[in-house]
Amino acid sequence: MSILAIGSIAFDTITSPFGTAERVLGGSCTYFSLAASYFTNVRVVAVVGEDFTPQNEAILKRRGIDTQGIQREKGKTFFWAGQYGENVNEAKTLTTELNVFEQFNPQIPSGYSDTEFLFLGNIHPTLQAHVRRQLNGARLVGGDTMNYWIDRTRDELVQTLKLIDVLLINDGEAKMLARETNLPRAANKVLAMGPRALVIKHGEYGATIFFREGAFGIGRHPFRAPTLPIEEVRDPTGAGDSFAGGFMGYIASQDELTREVLKRALFYGGVMGSFAVERFGTERLQNLSREEIESRFQLFRELTHLA
Amino acid sequence: MSILAIGSIAFDTITSPFGTAERVLGGSCTYFSLAASYFTNVRVVAVVGEDFTPQNEAILKRRGIDTQGIQREKGKTFFWAGQYGENVNEAKTLTTELNVFEQFNPQIPSGYSDTEFLFLGNIHPTLQAHVRRQLNGARLVGGDTMNYWIDRTRDELVQTLKLIDVLLINDGEAKMLARETNLPRAANKVLAMGPRALVIKHGEYGATIFFREGAFGIGRHPFRAPTLPIEEVRDPTGAGDSFAGGFMGYIASQDELTREVLKRALFYGGVMGSFAVERFGTERLQNLSREEIESRFQLFRELTHLA
Repeated sequence: MSILAIGSIAFDTITSPFGTAERVLGGSCTYFSLAASYFTNVRVVAVVGEDFTPQNEAILKRRGIDTQGIQREKGKTFFWAGQYGENVNEAKTLTTELNVFEQFNPQIPSGYSDTEFLFLGNIHPTLQAHVRRQLNGARLVGGDTMNYWIDRTRDELVQTLKLIDVLLINDGEAKMLARETNLPRAANKVLAMGPRALVIKHGEYGATIFFREGAFGIGRHPFRAPTLPIEEVRDPTGAGDSFAGGFMGYIASQDELTREVLKRALFYGGVMGSFAVERFGTERLQNLSREEIESRFQLFRELTHLA
Repeated sequence: MSILAIGSIAFDTITSPFGTAERVLGGSCTYFSLAASYFTNVRVVAVVGEDFTPQNEAILKRRGIDTQGIQREKGKTFFWAGQYGENVNEAKTLTTELNVFEQFNPQIPSGYSDTEFLFLGNIHPTLQAHVRRQLNGARLVGGDTMNYWIDRTRDELVQTLKLIDVLLINDGEAKMLARETNLPRAANKVLAMGPRALVIKHGEYGATIFFREGAFGIGRHPFRAPTLPIEEVRDPTGAGDSFAGGFMGYIASQDELTREVLKRALFYGGVMGSFAVERFGTERLQNLSREEIESRFQLFRELTHLA
């Protein structure tokens, strides 16, 4: 089955203690698509400017990603420059130039109307809802958001959450959205807003999925997946988007939507996030093999499973 | 087999959003001993003042803890007062009165010389080393420390680490001790200082155990155990000590010192820590049943294990 991803394509200039990468292809949609492409067919809807080259597009095409939903506008592509210090968990943003992304108005190609799996990347919640309503046949809708939208467009976001099956956010975003400092209580409050499941990403500590009573299975026990302790985190940019790509991509590759599938998907999310940070930009996500992915999945299992 | 715990006994006055507990029995040795007492016989070496009553001692005795190593000195018992805000992960210390603990000079009763498992609580590293050398027959020595000793007595601590088999510290302490911000690299540096295994506690995210190559088994893959997402953390005081008690107590209850035993011990550590925070002080640790503990162990397994 195929998954449709909506989000940003950007050029990133990234500096970390390991070096600098100049104007490499980035953006949430890019990381998500590359990560998901190892599991299923991926279609993207995003916007780029005149500086987006055939060589840039080839990075996606080489992974079999369907790029006909990429909209080309006059002007420049979204540009971000950031710096990581010794503590790579904290990015310092040096430059954000939204450029063509500021007026992004996602158009769904008619051939995409059969989309079964949809991922609504981190864009204005009203745009997310607009896309969601055009794809009413979707079996599962994943979504992302961020502090900016929680703070400035809370009402719109709360409406959009009713249209999302699985929301993927981090600890700080969950607490901010729920206005609650205790994480499981925050999770319950977010689930009451609409999603059937909530994935909370804990950075280097992994992620937890919380379920609404009875969603995808019986009961409401949460489930936690780890990330691998990585000794050389060269560039954490895109780790969360790669996590989402592995998570949603694996789900889209399965016939059934069971709780066990979502649990394994949480592991695959961590696996793809752990690969992403090993190299600058999307370099590591461009040339993986399914064997490397399965081997790391096995490492994650050994990291957490008792005999 | 029995375990000997050295550390502090204190009176704590604790305030959290859930209420206040006045002068309840606390201290690292108290939490550790109570948690360990569900797995094995526990002996304690600690110091108390004249305000320590038979009723206080009875809390330990009811759990079968051998209290003959408790030294009684003129003056008052260690007193701590602290406050937790909405974010219960951060304690604000209101008062610390070391009292008799300031001159604590641990004396090992002669009957304890057959001790096989030893836990060196958070005291001056030179005192830890002194106790360790008196108990050379110990099969396994666990140890704790804190920022205060890492900062002020680094040289002494580095010497003591050569005498400890398993060090249990938190993320911040590990990074400070190793002078390294990346956690797995910090772990490698700490292991190079002496311990065969290092448990790094991640607070609400669980804990990871790192092994020296070949220690307790083959290879050096780390292992991670979760904590349960707890909706009502009433009082996080003693969570880390209860973790250590569950971890060391389980190990002492087993015949073999294998890696699988240490992995299960990491789960039991999380289990005992998760119980401790549900009530003020040691209340929850005083009246558990082995069935409740096994049932929560099972919950932890379901939280993390794929089918």
